[in-house]
Amino acid sequence: MFKKRVPLYVALVHYPVLNRRGEIIASAVTNLDLHDLARASCTYDIPICYIVTPLKDQQILTKRLTDHWCKRIGKDLHPDRELALRRLRVVDDIPSVLKDIEGEWGQRPRIWATTARTDVESLSHGDARRYLEKDSGPVLLLLGTGWGLAPSVMREVDDILEAIQGKAAYNHLSVRCAAAILMDRLLSLDR
Amino acid sequence: MFKKRVPLYVALVHYPVLNRRGEIIASAVTNLDLHDLARASCTYDIPICYIVTPLKDQQILTKRLTDHWCKRIGKDLHPDRELALRRLRVVDDIPSVLKDIEGEWGQRPRIWATTARTDVESLSHGDARRYLEKDSGPVLLLLGTGWGLAPSVMREVDDILEAIQGKAAYNHLSVRCAAAILMDRLLSLDR
Repeated sequence: MFKKRVPLYVALVHYPVLNRRGEIIASAVTNLDLHDLARASCTYDIPICYIVTPLKDQQILTKRLTDHWCKRIGKDLHPDRELALRRLRVVDDIPSVLKDIEGEWGQRPRIWATTARTDVESLSHGDARRYLEKDSGPVLLLLGTGWGLAPSVMREVDDILEAIQGKAAYNHLSVRCAAAILMDRLLSLDR
Repeated sequence: MFKKRVPLYVALVHYPVLNRRGEIIASAVTNLDLHDLARASCTYDIPICYIVTPLKDQQILTKRLTDHWCKRIGKDLHPDRELALRRLRVVDDIPSVLKDIEGEWGQRPRIWATTARTDVESLSHGDARRYLEKDSGPVLLLLGTGWGLAPSVMREVDDILEAIQGKAAYNHLSVRCAAAILMDRLLSLDR
């Protein structure tokens, strides 16, 4: 499987997302999201993890944080972290992500959204895994920060992945942990 | 399975762990570790996630952080977070964890360690899952912060769980993401 490359891309979306009151906001970039998503992307060989934010100050902050590990003192102190963080790419919006992947593959990626909601029609993780194994072209997995992706995004995606169910009714995982579990379910070798 | 309760407990160990030079240290408690581990523990119905640190200032900090969400303003703003964070229990050391679980179950837990190393004899995640399903008594899963659990801990455990393999040789997941993936592999309903 995946003889050439893993066809799954990830985007951590900071706009448009919901806040706890259901309003559309641009959320702040969280330093540990960058590290955790980069490290998980590297572990599962996801080519690029896009950090989506239209806010220039947040873009500058993100570049400063990643440059610390990829270009400055962190690179020597901690070379493993550079390998991971160079998989991050900061972009303005979701259309920029689509254009970037289309430039690489010559085709628009299929778009999957994630949600913690269990009341929507969804693509099972097993079916999603089988789709990736068929090598049918690139797929972009959208992860929402804050209280999740805005409805305007959800309406435009090709599929919504089923919510992660643990053992209890509670499913309020952090986006970092949810991303790691999804990558493991969709891509790990030993399934 | 697990008609009565999930028999798996988790301990996030801050001492004794290794630093990048292989020296024994007490690592600092990380705020997002507390939130992510608590939320994942609640999702997978792990009864208690122990936060192990002998440092009194770190214990006080941890209690202050959790009290914010369990007793003060955070409780009203964000009731889901209280449900999760009240599963955390701060303790001095690993023997205190064993004593606590033994008090609950009347038997010492089996102890599993985690590692990112692939050159040690290990218990597969499938076998670990089947052990838990047999309901053979409590199990304590030790997660190391920093550069991992000290050799003195590793020598005393009953089993070392196999390292998480993604799709690449790189396996430097954060302890938050590794914990979430392990809980999912060992406990999720849909495997």
